[in-house]
Amino acid sequence: MEDMLTWGRQVLASQPFSVLLGAELLTFSMGSVELKVQLRADLKQQHGFVHGGVISYAADNALTYAGGSVLGPSVVTSEFKINYVRPAMGEFIVARAAVIHAGKNQAVCRCDVYVSSSGSESLCATAQGTIARLGQPPESRA
Amino acid sequence: MEDMLTWGRQVLASQPFSVLLGAELLTFSMGSVELKVQLRADLKQQHGFVHGGVISYAADNALTYAGGSVLGPSVVTSEFKINYVRPAMGEFIVARAAVIHAGKNQAVCRCDVYVSSSGSESLCATAQGTIARLGQPPESRA
Amino acid sequence: MEDMLTWGRQVLASQPFSVLLGAELLTFSMGSVELKVQLRADLKQQHGFVHGGVISYAADNALTYAGGSVLGPSVVTSEFKINYVRPAMGEFIVARAAVIHAGKNQAVCRCDVYVSSSGSESLCATAQGTIARLGQPPESRA
Amino acid sequence: MEDMLTWGRQVLASQPFSVLLGAELLTFSMGSVELKVQLRADLKQQHGFVHGGVISYAADNALTYAGGSVLGPSVVTSEFKINYVRPAMGEFIVARAAVIHAGKNQAVCRCDVYVSSSGSESLCATAQGTIARLGQPPESRA
Repeated sequence: MEDMLTWGRQVLASQPFSVLLGAELLTFSMGSVELKVQLRADLKQQHGFVHGGVISYAADNALTYAGGSVLGPSVVTSEFKINYVRPAMGEFIVARAAVIHAGKNQAVCRCDVYVSSSGSESLCATAQGTIARLGQPPESRA
Repeated sequence: MEDMLTWGRQVLASQPFSVLLGAELLTFSMGSVELKVQLRADLKQQHGFVHGGVISYAADNALTYAGGSVLGPSVVTSEFKINYVRPAMGEFIVARAAVIHAGKNQAVCRCDVYVSSSGSESLCATAQGTIARLGQPPESRA
Repeated sequence: MEDMLTWGRQVLASQPFSVLLGAELLTFSMGSVELKVQLRADLKQQHGFVHGGVISYAADNALTYAGGSVLGPSVVTSEFKINYVRPAMGEFIVARAAVIHAGKNQAVCRCDVYVSSSGSESLCATAQGTIARLGQPPESRA
Repeated sequence: MEDMLTWGRQVLASQPFSVLLGAELLTFSMGSVELKVQLRADLKQQHGFVHGGVISYAADNALTYAGGSVLGPSVVTSEFKINYVRPAMGEFIVARAAVIHAGKNQAVCRCDVYVSSSGSESLCATAQGTIARLGQPPESRA
């Protein structure tokens, strides 16, 4: 849905940290999202691989978008877990997240993060987490 | 141990992503570490809170340092899990990680992330993960 | 608090699965709990160690009790993560859980599981999870 | 592969705890497995739903089988994370696990647990974890 993608991109553009990392929304629809981060020298760790923090950022943000696609714009990541399966080196990473189960106030989502190098993709991390709707008292966001 | 802190700071300075985020090592000793990130406008999300990706970066990196303090310099985070317990706003965050159990090739570590605002600290996230020693064939890093 | 322990033991006695596993509540107070499982032949896996499922049961149930101590009796475990750090063999295991952060509707809790063998205790697993209060629409329990 | 299923069933029959819970292996092949637990009164909690410990047992064991299908028979679950998405009531649960990424010594696996009630299945939990090969020094199993 073009409108949804437009809205998602506006939200991303309003997150200074996402702008700092150069994140882009490739697709965004009910229940799924693709978020891309172009790799640059300053997103790496000391061995030339992309820093784990960039991968977990992409996973976390993609999980939040997936949850937000079904819960509405006012959501936060309550928690997530990530397994790094391979050191990532390449041109960009793409985090693909989808909703596994959605309730009224929470959604459980999953995300695979791929690194693209010379046109071929490899899985570099996989994540799973809970997205919670806000609008409840802030102390319930735990 | 001063030498350990000096070594840890050199490693941090060699991680371009840690430099981008302005991370600092406050303390570093066998089994524990404190990593600080000064909050800036470009580390925030759209509501003015520090972006979850910054908090998970700090947790992930502190977990790796804690593991590295007992496993040696060549380590990676295999996996971790984080619960965000409160939106963070303030001057800086501090991630405090410690080793819970160390084997020969892996360590299970824990990390609490606090936000400091006007001199008072609040817990904003808590994490747990596995740090693995490299030097084994790369395909075993999963 | 004696009354709290009595109440906790009644709840445990009303869980057929906890009765099947022979779980006992050693202590139960605001924010913390100790749950013990006496080891028997039928709680083991094929190599004579206690089955991981018994350890994760103990961690999960202790996390729920810890959360319930601050949120009230009507709670469920939303999610948890467990790291097994050592194969467990001995006379009994004890899961010690505590609340890390409590909001109005959720609590983030942590649990260490120890195995006791010949009077000495070793850590065999560590867990972290979210306990949610019910009384909200069931579909929000995700 | 019939031989693989036969072997898997023998392993399950040698786990006293799996026998206690009445677990059955429905399918078992390279990279995937289905493990079923018939629901009985003594596998429930106090509200009549299947106890979370039974669901996490099924997820944990299915993850281990999935990992073992690619790493060999001598494996343990290093860690896993589970999200419960719905209280489970019905005739049986089925845990379906698959390998997401396998290295030489570890595999990252995923598992969905469904409850079957009157012939229709619902997702009740989803899990993700790391399976490690043994044969390395025991202290590296962390």
